[in-house]
Amino acid sequence: MLKKINHIAVAVSNLDEAAKFYQSVLGLTLTGVEVVAAQKTKVGFFKIGESNIELVQRSEPDSPLVKLLETKGQGIHHICFEVDDVEAEVKALLQKGATMVDQKPRPGAHNTKVAFMHPKSSNGVLIELCELPKEH
Amino acid sequence: MLKKINHIAVAVSNLDEAAKFYQSVLGLTLTGVEVVAAQKTKVGFFKIGESNIELVQRSEPDSPLVKLLETKGQGIHHICFEVDDVEAEVKALLQKGATMVDQKPRPGAHNTKVAFMHPKSSNGVLIELCELPKEH
Repeated sequence: MLKKINHIAVAVSNLDEAAKFYQSVLGLTLTGVEVVAAQKTKVGFFKIGESNIELVQRSEPDSPLVKLLETKGQGIHHICFEVDDVEAEVKALLQKGATMVDQKPRPGAHNTKVAFMHPKSSNGVLIELCELPKEH
Repeated sequence: MLKKINHIAVAVSNLDEAAKFYQSVLGLTLTGVEVVAAQKTKVGFFKIGESNIELVQRSEPDSPLVKLLETKGQGIHHICFEVDDVEAEVKALLQKGATMVDQKPRPGAHNTKVAFMHPKSSNGVLIELCELPKEH
């Protein structure tokens, strides 16, 4: 079961500049910055209600994000729904015929376990599922 | 002040088909369908936590959405933040140098008052602000 929107990810060219907009203009608070080595990205989080805006910048020149920014430009990248058990959700989605990018969960930011669904399954929307660490 | 994500809008070619995915595969509940005459769109809402997913389909052949679907295809269209006083927010944003599509609020779905910010102000993200009717 999807519990809530954990975050909306926005691909940006320059995290510091984009963060200024979210802080100074929109008035949101930057709650953390983290490098996600596995995805070669650097992410900044802003809390909004029970959800977050996650700004994503490349952390390495060969990050997958570089090609995306070149072809599609900056903008909303994906939406992440929080679930209790991401492994069970992935199995259920596969059984329902969804096409998953990740057949099994993998590590995400903040010690989460995550899995992406392919946008062709979901009307062009890249959907991530995430499970928070049980200690929290 | 931005209170929460009111909704994420997703542009779709066929609302009924997309709604099937959100219901049968993702397990969300369709809470309402409404024609927004001013924007020539038909929208379907799905509750997720304190937010909603809003699927948007054209309601007229000359809807602005038609060109968008032709050029960009289906996908996440905008993010809407809920505020207490949209008129005051628009004034404050203009003073901070933001470029607004709407210089003054206009009617949105569900008797809301809404205003859109131009994506060039916000790293390619189309941002809507909405104020709920006070009776609610």
